Amino acid sequence: MNQPAVVLLSGGLDSATVLAMARAEGYACHALSFDYGQRHGAELRAAERVAEAAGVVDRKRIHLGLDAIGGSALTDDSIAVPNQLQEGVIPVTYVPARNTVFLAFALGYAEVLNATDIFIGVNAVDYSGYPDCRPAFVEAFQTLANLATKAGVEGAKFRIHTPLITLSKAEIIRKGMALGVDYGLTVSCYSADESGRACGVCDACRLRAAGFAAAGAPDPTRYF
Amino acid sequence: MNQPAVVLLSGGLDSATVLAMARAEGYACHALSFDYGQRHGAELRAAERVAEAAGVVDRKRIHLGLDAIGGSALTDDSIAVPNQLQEGVIPVTYVPARNTVFLAFALGYAEVLNATDIFIGVNAVDYSGYPDCRPAFVEAFQTLANLATKAGVEGAKFRIHTPLITLSKAEIIRKGMALGVDYGLTVSCYSADESGRACGVCDACRLRAAGFAAAGAPDPTRYF
Repeated sequence: MNQPAVVLLSGGLDSATVLAMARAEGYACHALSFDYGQRHGAELRAAERVAEAAGVVDRKRIHLGLDAIGGSALTDDSIAVPNQLQEGVIPVTYVPARNTVFLAFALGYAEVLNATDIFIGVNAVDYSGYPDCRPAFVEAFQTLANLATKAGVEGAKFRIHTPLITLSKAEIIRKGMALGVDYGLTVSCYSADESGRACGVCDACRLRAAGFAAAGAPDPTRYF
Repeated sequence: MNQPAVVLLSGGLDSATVLAMARAEGYACHALSFDYGQRHGAELRAAERVAEAAGVVDRKRIHLGLDAIGGSALTDDSIAVPNQLQEGVIPVTYVPARNTVFLAFALGYAEVLNATDIFIGVNAVDYSGYPDCRPAFVEAFQTLANLATKAGVEGAKFRIHTPLITLSKAEIIRKGMALGVDYGLTVSCYSADESGRACGVCDACRLRAAGFAAAGAPDPTRYF
């Protein structure tokens, strides 16, 4: 029987690639998505399509009231999503403690499944502004995971897999295409409309479009 | 101006005491409670009463879909709450990764508030079966907090305060009474009824009753 793994799946390009990589490694994948008051509900529908196409064992969508906390352009309507990348500054699209919250839930879900493997599509190259995408953060979470859980106390060793962490967007896209990922199913845009069409100007759109160009691959993104 | 702090407030005896201690230390307290599909909704109403009585700056209640994950007698209807404490075994009332999830949210909230102090009522004495109540867990989370956040990258030092961690239940009750906590407002029972009356037989009820007895204090708990 294949080993179970929890895969954090946002519906974007990166997590769709991670899911394909986890499947290719032979894991029985349990996809976990969050409805956290993000502006792009289209992303959640994309997560469903991606999970279905990849053939996951199970997928769960968890509601989190992150919007009650605010502090990010992605969860707080009073903060605008910027159209330009600001170099050297942590973007306002940073959601306070988001990956910590996501991994904490993934850990709980893994424990219930008797799984010790968790996959997350963090990337320290393109999103170097996000503190919770760095290797040091991931290592600290792995240490925490083994201390935080009944499974850890009983000897389990959790592994947080971050197969994209050192890859460029173009490298991620090439990996995914080699594994048959249909990026037309994914949504990356911070301001996507209900049908999943992208704005083409936000940070996420720019990085994605540049990635397809650098990979020499056709960009399947639908823009409005 | 008083320093802001986030205080995790369940509505139980322990967190009510922690809130009083944080207030006594001069913190401007922002109470954070979670609606996570736990069976005892009475606890959430208790959290509101306790927060009001203590004079918090603000209180938030966050909905978390922990029940979608299951795996605990507190969130999964198919697992019974036991009436007897089992020595040397992690209880089925353990909720996978619960304190990791709670602290992750507290961290995000703290960051939004520009706070670096987080209070949590974990206790390594009475609940020694819960892995996420141990000092090693708390230290690992504090390390993570500084790596996970924009504030941490910018030099903030988060502190996870666990003022109850080495106290017996009787010592906790004595501290709280000295600070004027009205324990009649709190609910500890895993099976409390809608009005907050307690069963008297679950682990939480037994520990609480024994605590009042050992403290030589009248037990204000209403039983059914």
